[in-house]
Amino acid sequence: MGGFREATSGEAEFLAELVAAGLVIESGVPGVYGFNAVYADIRERLELLVTRNAADDRPEKLHFPPVLPRKTLEGTGYLNSFPHLGASVFGFEGNESDAAELACVAARNGPWPHQAQTDLVLTPAACYPVYPAIAKRGPLPPGGLCIDVGSALVFRNEPSGDPARLQMFRQRELVRIAEPDTVAEWRNKWRDRAIDILTSLGIEASFSIAADPFFGRAGRLMSISQREQALKFEVLGPIASPQPTALASFNYHREHFAHVHGIAMADGSEAHSACLGFGMERCTLALLKKHGLEPDSWDAGVRKLLWG
Amino acid sequence: MGGFREATSGEAEFLAELVAAGLVIESGVPGVYGFNAVYADIRERLELLVTRNAADDRPEKLHFPPVLPRKTLEGTGYLNSFPHLGASVFGFEGNESDAAELACVAARNGPWPHQAQTDLVLTPAACYPVYPAIAKRGPLPPGGLCIDVGSALVFRNEPSGDPARLQMFRQRELVRIAEPDTVAEWRNKWRDRAIDILTSLGIEASFSIAADPFFGRAGRLMSISQREQALKFEVLGPIASPQPTALASFNYHREHFAHVHGIAMADGSEAHSACLGFGMERCTLALLKKHGLEPDSWDAGVRKLLWG
Repeated sequence: MGGFREATSGEAEFLAELVAAGLVIESGVPGVYGFNAVYADIRERLELLVTRNAADDRPEKLHFPPVLPRKTLEGTGYLNSFPHLGASVFGFEGNESDAAELACVAARNGPWPHQAQTDLVLTPAACYPVYPAIAKRGPLPPGGLCIDVGSALVFRNEPSGDPARLQMFRQRELVRIAEPDTVAEWRNKWRDRAIDILTSLGIEASFSIAADPFFGRAGRLMSISQREQALKFEVLGPIASPQPTALASFNYHREHFAHVHGIAMADGSEAHSACLGFGMERCTLALLKKHGLEPDSWDAGVRKLLWG
Repeated sequence: MGGFREATSGEAEFLAELVAAGLVIESGVPGVYGFNAVYADIRERLELLVTRNAADDRPEKLHFPPVLPRKTLEGTGYLNSFPHLGASVFGFEGNESDAAELACVAARNGPWPHQAQTDLVLTPAACYPVYPAIAKRGPLPPGGLCIDVGSALVFRNEPSGDPARLQMFRQRELVRIAEPDTVAEWRNKWRDRAIDILTSLGIEASFSIAADPFFGRAGRLMSISQREQALKFEVLGPIASPQPTALASFNYHREHFAHVHGIAMADGSEAHSACLGFGMERCTLALLKKHGLEPDSWDAGVRKLLWG
């Protein structure tokens, strides 16, 4: 497992409160939790609020599972940037005697023998399966398209004691693939919209130009370049950490995914792409932290926005 | 990857129809698909129909992600029964030079070096995370409890060309933990109810005592014993295979999970458990096969049951 990131005292205290209230159920592995109906209801209402806000994009809805063909990930260069966050799926390969050995070692919690890599990885970001699916359709009509992948589960190998840093979590994600200007304009619109949505829910949302956690020394250069080009925006809000936490993230990929997957506009010009994702667990936690652990007692205006 | 199971001609033809209609999106790996909004809408409406039918169980809703602590799985003996279906999550372990090697090998689609087993596996059945969560609460009150885990994603390492045999799929799952008689009665009620639900949707549902696909020679004995004790029921319906396909499954675990996780009744007596799961993709496919690929043209009675 990746290096464990200790919780700050504020983060640990908030997690303990969430667990004591039954909202969050610890699994024994940091960053992997169950949730009760109260928590899930807030999350689902937030998802619907984003859906209503996305209506004017007339997005096409597509749904993908949280596993992705290994080849899809390999083709994107993900492992150049985030080898430490990736997760590969292994499965048994062997005969009956190998299976008996596997069961025996596993019963003692040892590292499983006779595991071989499968054709699958865990999906690291909800937009990854979109590009190959769109590429198959051929060139895009003028204005391109907007895809809504719903509330999609993604995985990052980064165990942490912070309840706002999960290993498997939900991104409420939209993807725009179109002419460069159209994509840039769409991302700016959603940056402002995300601030409005979160502010309307009583969260002190702020905007920041951000960088991804690229790996290693070369990664530091990638981060600098990403910031200089303002390719990644985040909308931040307070949860339980000393600094505000990213609640939504907006990535402008320029031509990267379109080139990798062979997506172009019908007139032969270049297609660009951008995606945005609301971190659903983080947004839910920000609400619980701000308004308290009992949604029935939340401010009427906030309740109306979520429950109508 | 596990041995690939070829599709029959009927299965391959149905998959091709689903793909041509845009309902199903191929990923490049068999058993891993994307779905469009029409498909997802049918699935979600089916989920709500099950939810309405479960109302008299007054189930408590809990939600879990599709990864599970490795220790939880190891403690249940899963690897004695299904080593071939299990999937373990691996992640990168190494320095910058190892990361560079990983990226280089992966770019050529080779087997990834520097992958180490993490503390997580993919959840093989939606009920697995329920037992440790309930065990933490201490002894159960008389009558026990019913848990609704919603529509939960699970994984089995069994690539197949049959569109009804996915590697990652959704189980609409309920779990009952209580006194033995209560659990047995609940399972019988739901067996009849599942037949009624599916029949009301125009599906020729039939009941069967079934067995799990236990591994190897010892597994054949386990299957015989499971059938003799009638521990597994299935409700079957026609999709595109020569034989009917299991659309819902009802497993009576007797004391197994309660013992493993230390769950007992408050009076000190033994707790039993059972679970039931509707295979959401299979139920969706059964409807599409029976009524055609355009839900707008389905029989009014079926539409009313799903869309109200």
